[in-house]
Amino acid sequence: MKKEVVNIIKIGGKTIDNEEALAQFIKSFYRIPGKKILVHGGGILANQIGEKIGIKPNFHEGRRITDTETLDLITMVYGGLVNKKIVAKFQAQNVNAIGLSGADGNLIVAKKRAVQKIDYGFAGDIQKVNKDLLINLLSQNLTPVICPITHDEKGQLLNTNGDTIAKEIACALQAFYEVNLWLCFDKKGVLLNVNDEESILPKLNPKAYADLLHKSLIHDGMKPKLENAFQALKSGVSIIRIGSADDIDIAIKEENTGTFICA
Amino acid sequence: MKKEVVNIIKIGGKTIDNEEALAQFIKSFYRIPGKKILVHGGGILANQIGEKIGIKPNFHEGRRITDTETLDLITMVYGGLVNKKIVAKFQAQNVNAIGLSGADGNLIVAKKRAVQKIDYGFAGDIQKVNKDLLINLLSQNLTPVICPITHDEKGQLLNTNGDTIAKEIACALQAFYEVNLWLCFDKKGVLLNVNDEESILPKLNPKAYADLLHKSLIHDGMKPKLENAFQALKSGVSIIRIGSADDIDIAIKEENTGTFICA
Repeated sequence: MKKEVVNIIKIGGKTIDNEEALAQFIKSFYRIPGKKILVHGGGILANQIGEKIGIKPNFHEGRRITDTETLDLITMVYGGLVNKKIVAKFQAQNVNAIGLSGADGNLIVAKKRAVQKIDYGFAGDIQKVNKDLLINLLSQNLTPVICPITHDEKGQLLNTNGDTIAKEIACALQAFYEVNLWLCFDKKGVLLNVNDEESILPKLNPKAYADLLHKSLIHDGMKPKLENAFQALKSGVSIIRIGSADDIDIAIKEENTGTFICA
Repeated sequence: MKKEVVNIIKIGGKTIDNEEALAQFIKSFYRIPGKKILVHGGGILANQIGEKIGIKPNFHEGRRITDTETLDLITMVYGGLVNKKIVAKFQAQNVNAIGLSGADGNLIVAKKRAVQKIDYGFAGDIQKVNKDLLINLLSQNLTPVICPITHDEKGQLLNTNGDTIAKEIACALQAFYEVNLWLCFDKKGVLLNVNDEESILPKLNPKAYADLLHKSLIHDGMKPKLENAFQALKSGVSIIRIGSADDIDIAIKEENTGTFICA
């Protein structure tokens, strides 16, 4: 029996920070047929509000170091402001969205990252996704809108990478649905040359990726996203695409856009 | 057939602002048998964070005036920080909580309050509660934790009184469950003399309330809470109690505590 399709889309700062881009994305999202899940990051809003409160962003190699105050900030901005605004906008488009963090309904259990060379603070590495909750919500035609926060089942919220959340959800659901995973970011696809926006790779398989890595042609910032994509591929996710949230309309028409991750 | 019991509990600032009181409340809440819904307010945290961001609280006769910035603040603090922290703490107690605003799953639709003498800004008056969503979540043994934010189905979030949310949910569910509504606040019950903490009225019926109102013995700040309680009574809610969240343990033992609202 052919399984039902679920589209899991991760959007990042470029879409969230720009009101027009977000409105356009929400319209496009509405047109995607079938069941859908949105995972969102936070964008620069957390830094802007943090600056007003007196919390300085602290990054190590592109990863945020999450102290107690930063965790509160992220919980407010991602879990509250960004999540609820997106949900309300979806409701206006007749998408019955339900905003969730990983703590809600015990959706995503994570473990605080162990301190090694760097103490990332309250950063969480995912251990378990509650697929039953997602399956139930999807069966009621609800659209989960998930912020990048998880919990440890001991009362502690944890900051967790949005791409990784989208990937783990895709992997957890792939046995039950035909899963399409879209990892959106601020480029139109994986670029062969980071300085040339047109150098998009139309597809990428594990062998070609290994070659590009070997030749140091993969930008450091792209590596975690691609690792997530290839892990999803390995676990049986049907279609994986890396590209721009602006191009979702093109993809709905089944025209080529972004970079396909394939075997 | 005897209907199943649902306890709907509203807690306010006194419980939320005090970490110890909140921890104690969560332990007590865990012990309440059967299905449960928590509605929370926000406490002074919104004012404290607002002050840092430069948003001054603005009240008219005890009701907050919600401009755009204040709405964002409330959405961050109530919908994000307070809601998710409570949910995570519940999860640690094996209560499978799910945090929701009125926009999530189209739970509570409200209308922006019309401007009359006073413009309350983005304040919402409730029009509709999505009882089907609540019934489904409760049937999965999930415990909804609801923040005082609603939406207008047109993309606008609205600030809405927590007692009113608890009352409207109680009214919407009373046909399906035996509903116990607890409106908690910073006193041990309705006081006959606001300066005497021991002058608790053990019960109050509509006639006695009318008498007290007539004699100007009801404090202005108590009126909206009591109006909510009597509306719930009128619509068929089984048990309505006004008292302190600290005394829930006493109530679980079926000993008298707080003020019972009765016919």
